[in-house]
Formats: sequence, structure tokens, C-alpha cells
Amino acid sequence: MTKASLLALTALSLAAPALANTPPPRPTLEQAADNAGSYDPHAWDFVEGITTEVGQRQAGTEAEVRGRAWAAAWLKAKGFQNIAIEPYMMPTWVPGEPGKAEIVSPFPQSLAVAPLGDTASTGPEGITAEVVMFKSVAELQAAPEGSLKGKIAFVSNAMTRTQDGSQYGFAGPTRWVASGIAASKGAVATVIKSVGTDLHRNPHTGGTDFPEGVKPTPAGALSNPDAANLERMFARAGGRPITMKLVLTPRFLGETESGNVVGEIVGRNPALPPVLLACHLDSWWLGTGAIDDGAGCAIIAAAAKWVSISGQPLRTIRVLFAGAEETGLFGSAAYSKAHINEPIAVGLESDFGADRIWRFDSNFRETNPVLHKKIAAAVARFGVSAGTDPATGGADLNIVRDQKGALVDLQQDGTRYFDLHHTPDDTLDKIDPVQLRQNVAVWTQVVGILANEETAILTGGPVPSAPPVMNGK
Amino acid sequence: MTKASLLALTALSLAAPALANTPPPRPTLEQAADNAGSYDPHAWDFVEGITTEVGQRQAGTEAEVRGRAWAAAWLKAKGFQNIAIEPYMMPTWVPGEPGKAEIVSPFPQSLAVAPLGDTASTGPEGITAEVVMFKSVAELQAAPEGSLKGKIAFVSNAMTRTQDGSQYGFAGPTRWVASGIAASKGAVATVIKSVGTDLHRNPHTGGTDFPEGVKPTPAGALSNPDAANLERMFARAGGRPITMKLVLTPRFLGETESGNVVGEIVGRNPALPPVLLACHLDSWWLGTGAIDDGAGCAIIAAAAKWVSISGQPLRTIRVLFAGAEETGLFGSAAYSKAHINEPIAVGLESDFGADRIWRFDSNFRETNPVLHKKIAAAVARFGVSAGTDPATGGADLNIVRDQKGALVDLQQDGTRYFDLHHTPDDTLDKIDPVQLRQNVAVWTQVVGILANEETAILTGGPVPSAPPVMNGK
Repeated sequence: MTKASLLALTALSLAAPALANTPPPRPTLEQAADNAGSYDPHAWDFVEGITTEVGQRQAGTEAEVRGRAWAAAWLKAKGFQNIAIEPYMMPTWVPGEPGKAEIVSPFPQSLAVAPLGDTASTGPEGITAEVVMFKSVAELQAAPEGSLKGKIAFVSNAMTRTQDGSQYGFAGPTRWVASGIAASKGAVATVIKSVGTDLHRNPHTGGTDFPEGVKPTPAGALSNPDAANLERMFARAGGRPITMKLVLTPRFLGETESGNVVGEIVGRNPALPPVLLACHLDSWWLGTGAIDDGAGCAIIAAAAKWVSISGQPLRTIRVLFAGAEETGLFGSAAYSKAHINEPIAVGLESDFGADRIWRFDSNFRETNPVLHKKIAAAVARFGVSAGTDPATGGADLNIVRDQKGALVDLQQDGTRYFDLHHTPDDTLDKIDPVQLRQNVAVWTQVVGILANEETAILTGGPVPSAPPVMNGK
Repeated sequence: MTKASLLALTALSLAAPALANTPPPRPTLEQAADNAGSYDPHAWDFVEGITTEVGQRQAGTEAEVRGRAWAAAWLKAKGFQNIAIEPYMMPTWVPGEPGKAEIVSPFPQSLAVAPLGDTASTGPEGITAEVVMFKSVAELQAAPEGSLKGKIAFVSNAMTRTQDGSQYGFAGPTRWVASGIAASKGAVATVIKSVGTDLHRNPHTGGTDFPEGVKPTPAGALSNPDAANLERMFARAGGRPITMKLVLTPRFLGETESGNVVGEIVGRNPALPPVLLACHLDSWWLGTGAIDDGAGCAIIAAAAKWVSISGQPLRTIRVLFAGAEETGLFGSAAYSKAHINEPIAVGLESDFGADRIWRFDSNFRETNPVLHKKIAAAVARFGVSAGTDPATGGADLNIVRDQKGALVDLQQDGTRYFDLHHTPDDTLDKIDPVQLRQNVAVWTQVVGILANEETAILTGGPVPSAPPVMNGK
């Protein structure tokens, strides 16, 4: 230490008592965002808490009820206002006992399997049938009508990691439609290779659609190593039939109650349309809903908190922790129905994990280039570039799309997302705290700008529908 | 193409008919090893075949019987001689139904668990009790006698990846002895954090010892994410008791038949003691036994095959595919007992995955430095350095240790090994074909040298016992 610096330090120490009597200066929005990036404790506390104290939150079950109560209490402890649980009724599907898929012959062994959402039960005794393999949905579609009568269809897609998640649109149909197509051709059940990019014995579940008039059949996802094993069995069986016993016991419970949780940072002018931040609180039953979507709720709530630390915003910031996203966007639909006549200024959703935000899009780049450029300039220091795609909003922003309102998408890096999506491996340890904080910093910056925007944000007409990655399948 | 090279090509083409009538020259041992490294098909065929056509091979079960038949047929197809299945009787433990661990309060949710070998059943109704946490075996040992009466002990170790596998000795005791210590202090059951280095919802099973006079209790391994979750519950429960319902239903079947599979490349002088190459054919039930130890059997058998391609060796090369290694080295003990009077020239085992060999050790570096240096010089081109540790041999080389014979250890890179060891994730996709071929190349080179060694290999006295990484726990 030099003498000069020692003197400087002494001067500072002498000045300290006077400083202690001055309230600390309120951070600017930029400082609040930077602080969030450096040491935000709120987002981690939320996602650690809900995954540890509640765990999985399957839609329509008592676990989702506990999730809502936990989240509402957390918002209260963090100083949010106008906290409410808004219930709605919805048809509920539950997964039953852990699935079993046994190869009976010619190579007896167990494969890891999990039922797909909205599929039927085999009954506890299971279904035993010959397996017919298709390498794609297109191959399955080309199978003659009735050719699968009494058979189990096996559809084995391939999927590659992509930063923007675009391969979900490529590989996803295997889960979304293959069971319905197979059922319509007489199949008694369907198994698919998981729509996922990892190589662990953890199946990726998710929603399935059966076409109008086609009765749901049992259907399950094999983990990727197990699907690869079954592919090799076909290569090594020399034409011998491959027989599988499948036991999947999901149930439809009829209508049960689910609900949304809302809370607000009330603005200086609560009469202005609010900024709506959305995520979903439910998860599939296999994991603890850390990246899908505990992290999203953690990010939006932490950002709202940080904006309030930088000063009361002009507009109210409302957080919407939607229920029952995974099983059919029931929370999103119920929220839109209940609040359709209350205009939203702009909507944003976080539902693609917790990895770094790398691009932002809006649907007002052409109608309000000044605001778009202002956001671009403000987030550049976080490594976020301005995109040219029109923002479409997440699954829980139905209300904004229904109102043809303004949307901002903060695009997260999805390279790892489909390693974990809808699997038992969606647990807290998969979240990188540094990347999570970058999310909170970017959200704080963007939400702070939007919540202090004085004029209405004009958009350029109809909003495109959400892409499959965000549509809750 | 230049005119000169075109002329050269023409000259070659003209010479071809004459070459076609000459039998292709037999590769030298070095060429055979290099060829194995470039395009060995045998090892992959073995490990793909046994993991696909047989799958898991729990010791003492009908799956292990199928494994033996499959392996014997494979050896026959590859031209091995004197193939035999050598049966023995052994006490057999089987895992029962998939384990369940449910937190009852204060944070209800399911944790992923698997029973540990040689532990008892809770019965199908399970055991519900308060959980007491210990961060190490030392902490558990310090607990007062009787202090765990009626409780479930939870021992949560930590484990770091190591290239040489040495952390297995550090973390392994949590599995090997914690259940017995807890039982002796009155615990009704034990759960441990998996002895493993991954973060997937796949528990690591393995053998457990109960001390003389202590009755086995139920015990299971939680996956690492689940153990971390349970640790966080203690941090967040504010002193409230944490209650778990544990359902583990393993059974002891009494004595059942297991067996070893042997086969030979017969040498030019079968009267000389053979070179013994060992691996084990059984696996824990959770995975398909790809890295533990399908790959080991694949490597040793492929190397024996490549040595034979380079010419009939002086000594017989015998492969020993041992049974029931995982549950107590029963195959290794039975082999030693049956063949103790038939001297072995030198023993080698492959049982540490399929990643690259990076070092070799022998137990004759001081007594036969010429041979040690000859091997060192021959494997240097594969990136294998000569070590100075005395080789101890693998778990299935009891006969060599009992004979105080010569041993060579070809040390594999274990950095990834404890991500997969004894888990459902031990599947074919975890094997890197390029690294597997490097193993076959190195083994071909070393086995070829040893099988052509004319004089007996003198060792320097008693052989140290195998380290825990290799002792079948």
C-alpha cells in the first residue's frame, strides 16, 4: 500500500459517519440490473425452495395445490401486492404407477419407459404384442390402414441439439401425433424414442393428441438408450418378431381444480395497462420442475423485485404463475377468459430453462422502432443481440395474443434444454447460478424500461401463434 | 494427378494379377495391434451383442445363464478352442421390485432410490421413520450407541472425479460399511448418497457388508440429485423432523448356480503355463453391463483374437469371463479353487470401463526389468506410459494372487467411470468406439509379447491385495 492510498483511505474513514446518516442512494435501473447479475439471491431462493419444499407439481394434483400456496407465500414474503390464487376447473390426467416395458422375446430385458400425457392405461396386467418399427412419423403415415392391428407401434426419431430449440418442431411430432396415427391404423399401443437430446435412462414425457374420433391408446416414451437398444434388436433379430409387454397405468380423473397465482408490483399509475410477466408453476411428475419451469417463475419474480428496488415503476408489473401449462395450457386459457377486458401493455414469458439469454425479439420492431432500439441498446452489455423475428410470446400469454397486444421474447440458450425437458433429470443441480443471474439482469433491464414506458406500444396487427417449443406440448 | 503418378498407378495395376495369387502376408504383432486400433470389429460386436441380446446379467439369475450361453457361442463363432462353462454354487441376492423413497413430511415428494446388494427387505408395506443425517462415515461412527434406534440413517458423502479412480477408496466406504455401522447403532434402515460423480436421477447400487453379528437391514442409494435435495430439506426444515417412507424388497434366494466361461487360443506349446486374460460377465441389474464389464470381456477376447491373427502364439492364451463378480467374487474364487494347481504365466484383467489406457504397471518391474521395458517400448506409440506402481490385478485374478504369480495392469482412464458405475446408465452408448479400439490395440500388443515370452516371469514375492476399485464391491 502506498502512502497516498493510505491517506485516501483515512479520508474516506473520516467521512463515513456523515455518510451513514444519509440513506443509501436508490440504484438506477441500470445499477439494479447489474446488481442482479452480480448477486441476485431471489431467483435462486425461489427455484431452490419450490423444488426442495414442493418437488414435482403435476397439474390438477395436490402437489400443484401445495405449489400454489408455496409460491403465494413467497411473493408475500418478498413484498408483492395484490397476491391472489385464481382457481379454475380442468380435465385432469395422472400418470399412475411407474411404467414398465419388457422385451419378452427374442432378447428378454426391461426398457425404461414413462407414459405420455393424455394417453390410456394398459391395465395393471399390461399388453403383450409384436412391435413394428418406424424410423419417422412419415414412415408411420405411409403404413397401410389396418396394418398395425394388434401391434405395438415403435416410432424412433432422431433429434439434434439446437441453440434456438428449433429441432423441437422437427422431432416433436413423434410425441404429439404418432400415437394417434398408430391408433387410427389399429395399433393397440405406441412407444416412441424420447423427444430429447441426452443419453440417459430417463424418458421424456409430454402431451399427446389423438385425432377426433380416435380413442386414446396406451403410449409411452422410451429413454434414448433404450430406444437405441430396441433399434439394435431389430437389426440383430434376423427377422424374428420382437414381442413387448407394456404396462402403463395412467388415469383420467375427470374435472379437478387447478389455479393461477398472481401478484403485483403496483405502479405509480395503476390505471395504466400493466406489464405482464408469465411462467408456469406446474411440472410433469418425473422431475422437480427446476428448468421447466421453476426457473422461469424465479426469473420473472426476481426481475420485478429488482425493478421495484430501483424505484416504483410507472406501470404495474404483474406476475402470472400459470397452472396446468404442461397438460393443455388450462391456466393460460383461464387467465385470458377471466381478464380479457383488462388491457395488457406488453407481455413477456420465461419458459425455456435457465441458460443465458442471447437474443431478444419484439413484435413492435417496425411499429415502434424507437422502443425496440432502446431495449437493444440497454441489453447489449449482457451479450444480448437484437433479433428480427417477430416475438410470439410463451404459452401462458394467451391473453396478450387474444388482445393482439405487444410481446417481447427474451431468447434463452436452449442447447442443453432438451437433455432435461420433461425428464426425471429436471432438478435444481442443472441450473447454473451464473447463467440464472444473467437472466435476472436482462429481465430487470427490459421490464424496467417497459414498466416506465409512458405511451401505449402499437403492434403491427395479428400476432402469430406460438411456435411448438412454447406451446405447452 | 501428375503424369508420373499415373504411370506408377498403371505399373501397379499390371502387377496386380501376380500379387493376387500370393497369400496376403501375415501381419506382424505390431501390425495386428495397429490394425486393431484402426478397425477392430470384434470388441464392439461383443459388447453391442451382449448388451442388446442379453441386457442386464444379475449374478445367479437366469439372465446370467443366458449371458454365459451367449458368450460361449460368441467365442465359438470367433474360432476360440476349449470353450467351457464351469458352474459353481453361490448364495444369491436379488433386488426385488424397484425401490421407493417418499418424504412423508415436511416436504412430501419421491426420491429416486435403489437397494444395495446383500441388504434386507422392508417388506412391501415399507418402513416409515425419521431420517438422521450424517455428512460422512466418520460422523456416523461418532454417533452414540443406540442413538439411531428406530431411525433411518442418511449418509451423504461427496466424491470427485479422478483419472485413476482413487476417490473410490475415499467415498466407497459410505456404501461398503455405513449400513452396518448404522444398524449396529439401532437404525432400522440406511440411505446413502450414491457413490458416484454424476448428477442424474440414477442411483448407484453395489455391494454392502454388515459386520459379524449385525443383522442386515434395508439400505438403498439415493441418486445424487435426490441426496442433494434431502440435504437441502434439512437446511430448510428449521429443525422439524424429516420423515421418510422407504420400500425396498430385495430377497435372498439361498444357493443358486452361477458359472465361469473359459476359452482358449491354443499355443504352439500348450504345456507351458498360459497367459490368463480376465473380465466378468455378470452386471448389476440396473444397467446393461456395457462398461461394467461387457467392454472388458470384449477387449480381452478381441485382443486374443488379434494375437492369433498375427500367428499362433508360443503359450496358450486363456480368457476367463468370470461370473458373479459384483455380488462377491464368487466366480473368481471358484476358478482359483478349481485350477489352483495349474500354473498361470501372467494374469491381466480389464474391468474399468472402455476409455483410453494411459499407463501400464507390472509386478515384475524389478525382477524382470527387461520384459517390463520391452512392454513399455511397445505400447509407447499408443500414448501409454510405464508406471512404477506394483500391479495388483483385477478382482477376477484371485488365482494369480493365490499362486503369487505375475500380473500386468493396463490402467484405463477412469474420469467418466463413476458417472456410470452400477447405474441404469451403464449402456452401450457410453462406449466411445475409438477409445475401445485403443484398448484392443494396447492389449493385442501386450498379450502378444507375453504369450511369446519363452521364460517364466519371476515376481518379487507376495502380491499386494487388490485395491477397492477392483475388489468387486
